[in-house]
Amino acid sequence: MTFDFAIGANLRKSPYFDATLRAGVKSFSVYNHMLIPAHFGDPEAEYQRLMTGVAMWDVAAQRQVEITGPDAARLVQYITPRNLGSTRVGQGRYVPICDHDGWIINDPVLLKLADDRFWLSVADSDLHLWCQAIAQERGWQARVTEPDVAPLAIQGPLAEAVTVALFGDWVRDLRYFGFRETVLDDIPLVLARSGWSKQGGFELYLTDGSHGNALWNRVAAVGVPFGIGPGAPNDIERVESGLISYGSDMRWQVLPADPFEMGMGALVDLTREDDYVGRAALRTKAARGLTRRRTGYWVEGKPAFPGHPMPVHLGGEAVGVVSELLYSPRLGRSIAVGLLRADLGDETSGLSIALPDGAAGLRPTPLPFKP
Amino acid sequence: MTFDFAIGANLRKSPYFDATLRAGVKSFSVYNHMLIPAHFGDPEAEYQRLMTGVAMWDVAAQRQVEITGPDAARLVQYITPRNLGSTRVGQGRYVPICDHDGWIINDPVLLKLADDRFWLSVADSDLHLWCQAIAQERGWQARVTEPDVAPLAIQGPLAEAVTVALFGDWVRDLRYFGFRETVLDDIPLVLARSGWSKQGGFELYLTDGSHGNALWNRVAAVGVPFGIGPGAPNDIERVESGLISYGSDMRWQVLPADPFEMGMGALVDLTREDDYVGRAALRTKAARGLTRRRTGYWVEGKPAFPGHPMPVHLGGEAVGVVSELLYSPRLGRSIAVGLLRADLGDETSGLSIALPDGAAGLRPTPLPFKP
Repeated sequence: MTFDFAIGANLRKSPYFDATLRAGVKSFSVYNHMLIPAHFGDPEAEYQRLMTGVAMWDVAAQRQVEITGPDAARLVQYITPRNLGSTRVGQGRYVPICDHDGWIINDPVLLKLADDRFWLSVADSDLHLWCQAIAQERGWQARVTEPDVAPLAIQGPLAEAVTVALFGDWVRDLRYFGFRETVLDDIPLVLARSGWSKQGGFELYLTDGSHGNALWNRVAAVGVPFGIGPGAPNDIERVESGLISYGSDMRWQVLPADPFEMGMGALVDLTREDDYVGRAALRTKAARGLTRRRTGYWVEGKPAFPGHPMPVHLGGEAVGVVSELLYSPRLGRSIAVGLLRADLGDETSGLSIALPDGAAGLRPTPLPFKP
Repeated sequence: MTFDFAIGANLRKSPYFDATLRAGVKSFSVYNHMLIPAHFGDPEAEYQRLMTGVAMWDVAAQRQVEITGPDAARLVQYITPRNLGSTRVGQGRYVPICDHDGWIINDPVLLKLADDRFWLSVADSDLHLWCQAIAQERGWQARVTEPDVAPLAIQGPLAEAVTVALFGDWVRDLRYFGFRETVLDDIPLVLARSGWSKQGGFELYLTDGSHGNALWNRVAAVGVPFGIGPGAPNDIERVESGLISYGSDMRWQVLPADPFEMGMGALVDLTREDDYVGRAALRTKAARGLTRRRTGYWVEGKPAFPGHPMPVHLGGEAVGVVSELLYSPRLGRSIAVGLLRADLGDETSGLSIALPDGAAGLRPTPLPFKP
């Protein structure tokens, strides 16, 4: 099913919006109240480009929550169970953010720009409200803002070659999630080795939206010899790779999940002396042990998926959930991601999911999917 | 411009989703991470139906933040500058919610279901994060949840007749924003005299999503003699009526505004003894006096609007902003809403806005628009 998209005044436009129109965007979605391209007319070619070449994505909807001030570091450390003690300026960290009950409310990448300046590159929820309320109610000197920052992603096996052609050889030395503030001609940005795919690449955090078209055009031009083309965060690749999507795989309102069952247990520091949001709840969950675990599923046939979490059954009993299901051309099979009762191993047989076309069988398999 | 809409797993579906598909929905938007119908193929007829007959709207995306527990009333009173002292069970209140700097972060309708149970029927931001953080950081016994509640709106001059036919004569006695918990056959809901239009009507807060199709079909069937038809919150009517749209007319990230400049000053109780979020900032703003004021604008010609806030100029200087601009068939003119420097009265001439088609002249005029 496709529908017209009502582009109303309540939906924000990316600084790359006009450029994506010229590039032939055909479909949008909405993320953090902002339009985000979904595809440019040929999803299969866009998938191939990501897997074998290089793609450029408008991911401005990945908004930044900036936290600055004397208590900025204190606030950032307080809102995540991850221990940031060893995080240096210029490093990024994937940080689960939990509420006081231990449920994940966002899973941003934290960028430490200075000892008193941080960005949370957020998934699809208004995390700024959370950060502001905590800082203010605690009387901490931490200012929470949404700066004029718009990431442009360059992803795929040839992403490094394009990025070297844009910035020079020094980018090869950037570690994963490492970043540096720099300029491209007169365009100010933060260059990071990151991006929402497992194909490798970089994100250019443009720090002045008025240069949106210029940056898009510059990347597109330098990328020509490498066959760069427009695309968007790719659902097929992310499911194949087991990348987590807050809003799809979990969401506080729809499908609450904790860091342990989402496979982020290693990021939860239960030994921390300092208090942090959700510490007591997470300790209780850890002591109780896993009740659900994140898993991939091989799926029989080529069924359509309604596009929202669906229960997984064993006999008559609901023992898990599928959060996304699609057909993988590369694997030649339907695959899914979701949660499963922790006591059920990968050898479990007889799992099924009720879909519009009828029931389909499932078999658990570790993530990422292996051919 | 219309585009395909990528209905991804990260966008929630309303309990009325299947019903709206059968009713021929042609366009969706996204609100509170949920799909919301935008139109059913004939926006003009849908506008006429709202103005002269009766329309039914899937407004499930107007999510409820439920606050319960011994400190629920305390929390609700703390997060709004409005004095709720006189609010009784069964009454609704329009409550601006401000951050600690006095900027509006949401403008929900509060429903007092019991002395220790409230709903915030929220505009498009994750207000639950704000409420949860404050309750938990203050150690208050107030539980914040998003219950299974999905409003269905019946709007238009014939809305009362339809609602009487559904529920009986008692609904005539409901005051504006008054509500009652009831059932329709075996369908549990809260019936309120409310809705996001100035044409009058009711909202049926369905409290069990599994009855979504049943409720939609029941309302559609009973509405047949009254010529009811599907529709959606209508931008033309809301601009004509001067209804505020959080996300369009203001948004913390894009166009921050305070209650005074948005015309909600009467809802801010500066005399309250008890502390509330933003009290100091709002007192300072009140003492400083208005710098901007909300206004309507008559607009020359029939220009296209890019769909995001645009500055209003007087000579070379930016003196205001237009948040939405459209053509009103009823008024036979282009109209807009936005903000204007407070010292500039309705007689101000020489105002202009730079639009894709070129500059257009503006003249301030009070809201709602009068023919």
